[in-house]
Amino acid sequence: MKTFSIKPVSTSLEKDLRHKIDFKTKPLGALGQLEKIALQVGLIQNTLSPELVKPHILVFAGDHGIAEEGVSAYPQEVTWQMVMNFVQGGAAINIFCKQHQIELQVVDAGVNHSFDPALPVINAKVSYGTANFLKSRAMTREQLDWCFVNGASIVQDKHRKGCNVIGFGEMGIGNTAAASTIMSALFQLPVEQCTGRGTGLNDEALQHKIRVLSAARNKHADVKSPQDILATFGGFEIAQMTGAMLQAAELSMIVLVDGFISTVAYAVAAALNPQIREYAIFCHQSHEHAHGLLLKHLDAEPVLQLGMRLGEGTGAAVAYPLVQSAVMFLRDMASFESAGVSNKT
Amino acid sequence: MKTFSIKPVSTSLEKDLRHKIDFKTKPLGALGQLEKIALQVGLIQNTLSPELVKPHILVFAGDHGIAEEGVSAYPQEVTWQMVMNFVQGGAAINIFCKQHQIELQVVDAGVNHSFDPALPVINAKVSYGTANFLKSRAMTREQLDWCFVNGASIVQDKHRKGCNVIGFGEMGIGNTAAASTIMSALFQLPVEQCTGRGTGLNDEALQHKIRVLSAARNKHADVKSPQDILATFGGFEIAQMTGAMLQAAELSMIVLVDGFISTVAYAVAAALNPQIREYAIFCHQSHEHAHGLLLKHLDAEPVLQLGMRLGEGTGAAVAYPLVQSAVMFLRDMASFESAGVSNKT
Repeated sequence: MKTFSIKPVSTSLEKDLRHKIDFKTKPLGALGQLEKIALQVGLIQNTLSPELVKPHILVFAGDHGIAEEGVSAYPQEVTWQMVMNFVQGGAAINIFCKQHQIELQVVDAGVNHSFDPALPVINAKVSYGTANFLKSRAMTREQLDWCFVNGASIVQDKHRKGCNVIGFGEMGIGNTAAASTIMSALFQLPVEQCTGRGTGLNDEALQHKIRVLSAARNKHADVKSPQDILATFGGFEIAQMTGAMLQAAELSMIVLVDGFISTVAYAVAAALNPQIREYAIFCHQSHEHAHGLLLKHLDAEPVLQLGMRLGEGTGAAVAYPLVQSAVMFLRDMASFESAGVSNKT
Repeated sequence: MKTFSIKPVSTSLEKDLRHKIDFKTKPLGALGQLEKIALQVGLIQNTLSPELVKPHILVFAGDHGIAEEGVSAYPQEVTWQMVMNFVQGGAAINIFCKQHQIELQVVDAGVNHSFDPALPVINAKVSYGTANFLKSRAMTREQLDWCFVNGASIVQDKHRKGCNVIGFGEMGIGNTAAASTIMSALFQLPVEQCTGRGTGLNDEALQHKIRVLSAARNKHADVKSPQDILATFGGFEIAQMTGAMLQAAELSMIVLVDGFISTVAYAVAAALNPQIREYAIFCHQSHEHAHGLLLKHLDAEPVLQLGMRLGEGTGAAVAYPLVQSAVMFLRDMASFESAGVSNKT
């Protein structure tokens, strides 16, 4: 099984970073969360003048056997259709990446469709969708390992090209069902608390989704380790995100966690290697029911709460300029001394 | 007294705008608050394809007589020193405006300092700081009128140059004291509920500030109308913001409201002409104690909650890319039909 070795960030510059932040021309702490991000990025990059280089967002796409149980408001074909929409530049994530000069890369982690190899889609396909986890495990341990290797390899490639900040989004009809079940198993929480309307289920369909996922949890009640939970309830795209995030942290890159499903992938990564925490920025708290609770369990403070629930990395993309703002004020703002401004009396 | 005439936005395109938003390739409502902003901007500009042109942020600076009562953690000279910092490009608002290509303009609304006329500061000085409102009214009705005229004139100038989106920030030692007292008088709320630590008062200093402001409220207990409240507790920069915001709405510009003090200026504007609401975007909920309560009273939903408390228009500046995102998805995202993606089953 592919494993990762994430080193703690060096704290040798922490005092100097705090001093630099505190003596900018503003009251102590007046830039709020931007100050926390500035400190975090400075620590990750081990410098007083960090910079964001070649930002990327990876959108991992995959299909889910569980979709056949009617747990999504959309048909499965939407997964590959949306991949085509990403390729053609028409999706929300395309718009926001273009706005912020973030390079967008779509990954076929396991879509139930054959894409033309000429398309700009990274082929990391493990299979044509996972198995229905109401009947069997979503994927084998070998497939899970393959997911980690694939996800890691894509991140290594971006890192080699100079990228030091990378966001993780996803597309996959049925993947809130997978994510909710993973969350429920990982934190030993009732399925109801972990399950929401996804792309827009009505009350009745939500109750059906909860029944299906509860039955699946019962069927696989013996599953305990993070790896087994991930393999059992799956999502090739979720598992590849987990591997990719771990790889990014191993390479000391800034990890931009997107919405609910991305945070579930992160939660598995953090269960495997808690050190990833120092590299992660939680970009957006989704409107999806369980995301607030999940962030609480992770003791994570989201940058944005815009009531979005789209995935695709959209939360990471729209939060990116705020990460930039944090880096820019740290680099470029004047200090009390340099500006000739009187400090607190 | 200068008055303003704000016309309601036309709702003739509302149905078409909602349809355009709803049939983008995303689940219904999945872009959350960005969808609300897209609708609002479309209605303000009365078009299905709005655009943001020549964004500006105006930072109004002024001094406060009440500062001599020791209600701020910083000495009064910081007001003019920070104006110089704005001019030299070293303040937080400079960094964020540069980041987002927002044109920044500093206005001397009433700083207790004479600036070199050669500096790029708009001279709209009404006086060298307001009077101490613990002893008398902060400004006369004539000075208030002058503030409205000055604020309006600056916005007219920006509008003539093509600007259609404008943010309002401020700088002024002692101006949270003025803003809190205005809020207390305007909404008939106890001073304690409206008063916070400003730039960073300790517990004892906060209690002193509350005692001073309560005494001032008692002294001017007869003051009732929005104009009288504004003139009594003042802030030349606050009053100029009020006039400037009203003018911007009259010209159908998008009004970006910044933090606590900017929102107090807005609250007075809304008390004078409630129609301004349709033009206003509330950019950031400040960490300043009373801002959440104030936004609740205005039934306003902030875009960001980053725990900042700096003013200067920084909340407006860092929220601006999200307003851009809203406009961009409305303009450029594909529809289910154009992208060949199946809609909800």
